[in-house]
Amino acid sequence: MDDDVRGAGDEVDPVEAIAADVFSRACTSRGALEHVTGKWSLLALTALLDAPHRFGELRRRVDGVSEKMLSQGLQALERDGWVHREVRSSIPPHVEYRLTPAGADLAPRLLDLVRFVEDRMPDVHRAREVHDSRT
Amino acid sequence: MDDDVRGAGDEVDPVEAIAADVFSRACTSRGALEHVTGKWSLLALTALLDAPHRFGELRRRVDGVSEKMLSQGLQALERDGWVHREVRSSIPPHVEYRLTPAGADLAPRLLDLVRFVEDRMPDVHRAREVHDSRT
Repeated sequence: MDDDVRGAGDEVDPVEAIAADVFSRACTSRGALEHVTGKWSLLALTALLDAPHRFGELRRRVDGVSEKMLSQGLQALERDGWVHREVRSSIPPHVEYRLTPAGADLAPRLLDLVRFVEDRMPDVHRAREVHDSRT
Repeated sequence: MDDDVRGAGDEVDPVEAIAADVFSRACTSRGALEHVTGKWSLLALTALLDAPHRFGELRRRVDGVSEKMLSQGLQALERDGWVHREVRSSIPPHVEYRLTPAGADLAPRLLDLVRFVEDRMPDVHRAREVHDSRT
């Protein structure tokens, strides 16, 4: 998205006017893509496909993530509209994360990618063996 | 993938025996997933869907990537079997990258994700505005 091509006084909505292009370093879609494909965020979004999770549940599910990294990832996903954060007035109160409708459209695509890579791991290991035997 | 559950003397192929699970920090599929979803690698794989590219062409297409980051990404993708690197004996010789058959299965999934996020950018911007006006 390149805002420089428009002159002053143009009334077009900058968000709608120009198609997003992640290949352009100036396009905001690149940052948004990184938010959903980030190491921990991708796993968190995929986990939320199953059910809403409390923070601690998500942290246990996404094995190895630090509190800080998970929290930062969820904040970016909430801000971008993929995840809804709700403070439940239970006793004691707790915070629950769930996919928004947009997140529910997105997450199956990530799950598809996760399953594809998981299923191909025997091929990946064979490729690595062949590669490492050559070098 | 948890190798600890098998006793000594088991003859099963460790790669085939246990289903990969990216949610486990010990599973090698997590690293493989990161190789394909990494900021620059995802864009490089998507670019290679169009056609084979020389290194310099790829670098121009993936706007903003450094030579070092693109090179490291391509090396990991080559080792994992998604990308084939070929030294062409032209004059002068040049190196060309193209998708392997496995990479040609993978890349459309990444393109689908890229297009999904690009198409949703107006919603993402609106979500950010709503979020930022609340905080």
